[in-house]
Amino acid sequence: MIIQLKNNSTKTQIEEINNFLKTQKLSPSFVQTQFGKYIIAVGKNYPDMRLFSKFDSITDLHRVSDNYKLVSKKWKLDNSIIDLGDGVIIGGNEPAIMAGPCSIEGEENILETVAHLKENNIKIMRGGVYKPRSSPYSFRGLGIDGLKDFYSECKSNGIKIITEVMQSSQIEDMIDYVDIYQVGARNSQNFNLLDALGEIDKPVMLKRGISGTIEEQLQAAEYIFSNGNEKILLCERGIRTYENAYRNTFDINAISILKEKSHLPVIADPSHGVGIRKHVGNVALASIIAGADGVIIEVHKQPQVAFSDGQQNLDFREATELYKKIKGLWAYKKLIS
Amino acid sequence: MIIQLKNNSTKTQIEEINNFLKTQKLSPSFVQTQFGKYIIAVGKNYPDMRLFSKFDSITDLHRVSDNYKLVSKKWKLDNSIIDLGDGVIIGGNEPAIMAGPCSIEGEENILETVAHLKENNIKIMRGGVYKPRSSPYSFRGLGIDGLKDFYSECKSNGIKIITEVMQSSQIEDMIDYVDIYQVGARNSQNFNLLDALGEIDKPVMLKRGISGTIEEQLQAAEYIFSNGNEKILLCERGIRTYENAYRNTFDINAISILKEKSHLPVIADPSHGVGIRKHVGNVALASIIAGADGVIIEVHKQPQVAFSDGQQNLDFREATELYKKIKGLWAYKKLIS
Amino acid sequence: MIIQLKNNSTKTQIEEINNFLKTQKLSPSFVQTQFGKYIIAVGKNYPDMRLFSKFDSITDLHRVSDNYKLVSKKWKLDNSIIDLGDGVIIGGNEPAIMAGPCSIEGEENILETVAHLKENNIKIMRGGVYKPRSSPYSFRGLGIDGLKDFYSECKSNGIKIITEVMQSSQIEDMIDYVDIYQVGARNSQNFNLLDALGEIDKPVMLKRGISGTIEEQLQAAEYIFSNGNEKILLCERGIRTYENAYRNTFDINAISILKEKSHLPVIADPSHGVGIRKHVGNVALASIIAGADGVIIEVHKQPQVAFSDGQQNLDFREATELYKKIKGLWAYKKLIS
Amino acid sequence: MIIQLKNNSTKTQIEEINNFLKTQKLSPSFVQTQFGKYIIAVGKNYPDMRLFSKFDSITDLHRVSDNYKLVSKKWKLDNSIIDLGDGVIIGGNEPAIMAGPCSIEGEENILETVAHLKENNIKIMRGGVYKPRSSPYSFRGLGIDGLKDFYSECKSNGIKIITEVMQSSQIEDMIDYVDIYQVGARNSQNFNLLDALGEIDKPVMLKRGISGTIEEQLQAAEYIFSNGNEKILLCERGIRTYENAYRNTFDINAISILKEKSHLPVIADPSHGVGIRKHVGNVALASIIAGADGVIIEVHKQPQVAFSDGQQNLDFREATELYKKIKGLWAYKKLIS
Repeated sequence: MIIQLKNNSTKTQIEEINNFLKTQKLSPSFVQTQFGKYIIAVGKNYPDMRLFSKFDSITDLHRVSDNYKLVSKKWKLDNSIIDLGDGVIIGGNEPAIMAGPCSIEGEENILETVAHLKENNIKIMRGGVYKPRSSPYSFRGLGIDGLKDFYSECKSNGIKIITEVMQSSQIEDMIDYVDIYQVGARNSQNFNLLDALGEIDKPVMLKRGISGTIEEQLQAAEYIFSNGNEKILLCERGIRTYENAYRNTFDINAISILKEKSHLPVIADPSHGVGIRKHVGNVALASIIAGADGVIIEVHKQPQVAFSDGQQNLDFREATELYKKIKGLWAYKKLIS
Repeated sequence: MIIQLKNNSTKTQIEEINNFLKTQKLSPSFVQTQFGKYIIAVGKNYPDMRLFSKFDSITDLHRVSDNYKLVSKKWKLDNSIIDLGDGVIIGGNEPAIMAGPCSIEGEENILETVAHLKENNIKIMRGGVYKPRSSPYSFRGLGIDGLKDFYSECKSNGIKIITEVMQSSQIEDMIDYVDIYQVGARNSQNFNLLDALGEIDKPVMLKRGISGTIEEQLQAAEYIFSNGNEKILLCERGIRTYENAYRNTFDINAISILKEKSHLPVIADPSHGVGIRKHVGNVALASIIAGADGVIIEVHKQPQVAFSDGQQNLDFREATELYKKIKGLWAYKKLIS
Repeated sequence: MIIQLKNNSTKTQIEEINNFLKTQKLSPSFVQTQFGKYIIAVGKNYPDMRLFSKFDSITDLHRVSDNYKLVSKKWKLDNSIIDLGDGVIIGGNEPAIMAGPCSIEGEENILETVAHLKENNIKIMRGGVYKPRSSPYSFRGLGIDGLKDFYSECKSNGIKIITEVMQSSQIEDMIDYVDIYQVGARNSQNFNLLDALGEIDKPVMLKRGISGTIEEQLQAAEYIFSNGNEKILLCERGIRTYENAYRNTFDINAISILKEKSHLPVIADPSHGVGIRKHVGNVALASIIAGADGVIIEVHKQPQVAFSDGQQNLDFREATELYKKIKGLWAYKKLIS
Repeated sequence: MIIQLKNNSTKTQIEEINNFLKTQKLSPSFVQTQFGKYIIAVGKNYPDMRLFSKFDSITDLHRVSDNYKLVSKKWKLDNSIIDLGDGVIIGGNEPAIMAGPCSIEGEENILETVAHLKENNIKIMRGGVYKPRSSPYSFRGLGIDGLKDFYSECKSNGIKIITEVMQSSQIEDMIDYVDIYQVGARNSQNFNLLDALGEIDKPVMLKRGISGTIEEQLQAAEYIFSNGNEKILLCERGIRTYENAYRNTFDINAISILKEKSHLPVIADPSHGVGIRKHVGNVALASIIAGADGVIIEVHKQPQVAFSDGQQNLDFREATELYKKIKGLWAYKKLIS
């Protein structure tokens, strides 16, 4: 059960509700986010809802049978909107398009990508500076210095940054240079990292695990929300299956289901979701029509020399064409719905 | 290597080519379909192409490195079109929409579905009369008598029929009452059935195996083609994965990849591909934008009382809305491409 | 519910029980096998068991909640034993070992394998004459003539034969030359073939589907049993997963679970289950300790020149060593249990 | 390429080798562990091995084509042995048996488990104090205070401790109270955690990812080794597949393959690997016969009231019987090999 509280609820008022819940054999967890105060009560049986009428600080009550609570659409019917500032909004009237290289490769790579994004009026740049790599001997990213360069170029060009965080101890160092923290597939159940990201007031994009379930992804989001941060995006990036005609099996069903189950914005990652340049566009467009609020796409001036994932990077010309198609399809979809 | 022959090539001419191929350590297979004559030559090294110039009966030569040959787009760049007669065409300028119940349930069920299809100008009705069921104690379909009723109602209303065939011995009995034979996921590698379907001149829709690969599906199609039947449709119906938030994992990547690899039309089955009524529409539309030539959808006047698969059947109102959206999206897609 | 009948029950007596079941809203299926007569009654609620006391022809009643009935251990606690004649028994006091090439390759191949088996006192030879192949251009086996040669050599040497059947129409041709029909993974849900194999009185070994569930395998066995044939073996041959360090993921859990759920003998196929020669022995031994009644193993005099699956074939020396280890481990297991 | 160095190699000597490697277009990584010094050189082509003869500090050279290097059996043929002190050794002449509850539940739970282990001469107790839980509202373990109690009881009874670490920042706090750090399936590619565990001198048991590959597990081990810690155990705990007749699909193939590919000890976790009490024993024994160096098993005085995973916990009587069988089978295996 989710108990929504007035924002000015006092400790004493909350304590009283908690005490009442315990008498009802419910286990309460108090949650305070940047937007609101909530009590999550977990237990086997719920009391008569009328018994709550004596508590003035309660604004609303919701029974949520899902294992996840605060990220469920069962209590919050309106879609959540993530506002990055300067008019850059995710989950609103425009499709969110994030594009950039797999890894930030250096100044030239940043500059040419920024120029490409500006030409196309794309407002969010992706690029890793901490790279999770299967082998310890592979390139692991430019680190915090790379991030600072990345930020300074983007900032001066009005472009927002999404980049991956790999452990709690990086959060503070990165916070001034990041607009969206990305949690990668390999960290999708790194619960300590999720806890820590719940304690800041910055958006977090949470990728589905390599073979994570939809339910697990929503519960991971619940970790962030219940620690205090409502600014969460869910990202579908394909799952690991037996099929090896492509990189991952993009789960188009998940796009539709996440939009039904949760109020959080859903971003598709077709670059990892199929992993083959010539199919990225089709999967991106399919995601939009299935309900995604946006896409994150790997682009590179010269995919063939990219530090990593070259085979799934679009070049600038291909990307430009795809942006147009996405925007067009989005407009068509709005028109008919 | 595919060697295309003139349609009037004689046995002697073919024999000469075969003999030549054997001298080159290539193993030849002669294929005669309703449309053409071919020799498939398999081996490790191919001879100098100029050596074939002495054979008058050869019209074209193609090296195809794929394990499948005749179904590959590497030799036949134009998309194949399946003509069902009476102006009903698959793989052409209109999206193919097939709709109907999981199983044919009786006369009333046929009549009400036919009426629904006519209202919506849908030209192909689906419906099983032989049902593969996990348990021997479940309803296994109305059989050949059900098919005859099904056919007579559709015929008089100008509607074509697609229905599943489960074994070779049924083919002949069914042939006068079927416009498209469907091979189900469980028979996707029933090679004897595929061989037998290659010997008739009727379209066959080949579903992907329950956990079949894209490559296996194309090789299954090669069985049919190489036995003499070019009229093949490929159907993506989702694969079995660990995720249980839905019935199957619809493989949107496969739609895009099949269209790249093969000249055969691709049909999406979102009903089995997600298996939950409220998501069928999104997956259907996503398939269209990703490249599918059509969809096959389970519809039922009253899904809650359907003999099987009720949870994934659309009711007539939902289906009507979806047909419109599919046609609209198809038109939009044609416009922008 | 399983209703066991006296073997001399008359049509009238059975009719009376069926009529009674229908009054109780139960759907009855009469089953007559080579060993017994049964009625399977399926429905939502079961009547008071005492009501059956009026029927003299009933010997026993069992409520079986599984989706499969006659193959369940819930009604038949004793393990089923398959007697191939001449003292060759599966599911009894000795481990069943079946060995031979993937495909029968010709007379020499048969003779040298038979000699190898005789030396090692192995009583069952495997070898395909109908081969399911992904590509229509691959070698598809020697067919019925190959089988006749295979049989005549084995017969004169006291060796039993297990070989794959691919479609119903082959059953009759093969019946005089086969001791165990094998149903391959690709036909594991070819229900018409299963029906047909239920109508003969020869043992059938049923492989699990390529990504079949344990439940599906048991239901497939139920098809055979409910059509009249109790002589069924279940074979675990690995499942398809994302892992590609080996051919299939051998499901050791399934061995233990099948032995708990069913009274049918369980055979392990480590050759396909791991698909790499040097690991076949470990997987075979693990299966025995986990409960398997026997193993089926690919052996070849010269694996490197085998027509198919050479990389998973043991040579005769390796096989000889493995037979000894299997027999030793079996004896040890009997000793401690 | 692995270049083994004398332990007294100086910085200058190492620098010289590194410089030489760079002239050969090889990228060197220097590794110093508790046991040795190595240079890993990665590149496309390797120089003539004789060119290394001029470097006195080199003791051996190994070309290792695997993506993992130091954990490969290609350079270190002898199996690694993990010595926990007080005669408790893993990878040696006795099977390693680790047993205990899923989570440490309190003093009574510790005391009764310790008594059970002592009775059975089991030397390593498992038990989580930090629990990765899908839901943020679930019990997450007793934390460091629980660990201290756990340790003090075990220490005074001569029992070693294995427990899970979830993030780098916990390592230091835990180090005095832990004999083996366990990295859970969800953290199997938490590379920062792996890096940090490479910097300490305590054994680490690395579980395979939820759907991790064998290759990924070995590369994760390479992270730990290449950061300086050679004391690594590999744990097979089953993978996520479509089958839901049990919890995970225990990968018996992986046991055999890990022992072939790597010199590190391999531990089987049948409790998670099948997840059903009555099958844990069979899977444990199968693992031993397939090559595992030991097992980790969940036991609880009263599984039905365990805080977590009760359905896969053995009670003390069942566990006692299994320990005996494991030791007996181990002895039998030694005898015949």
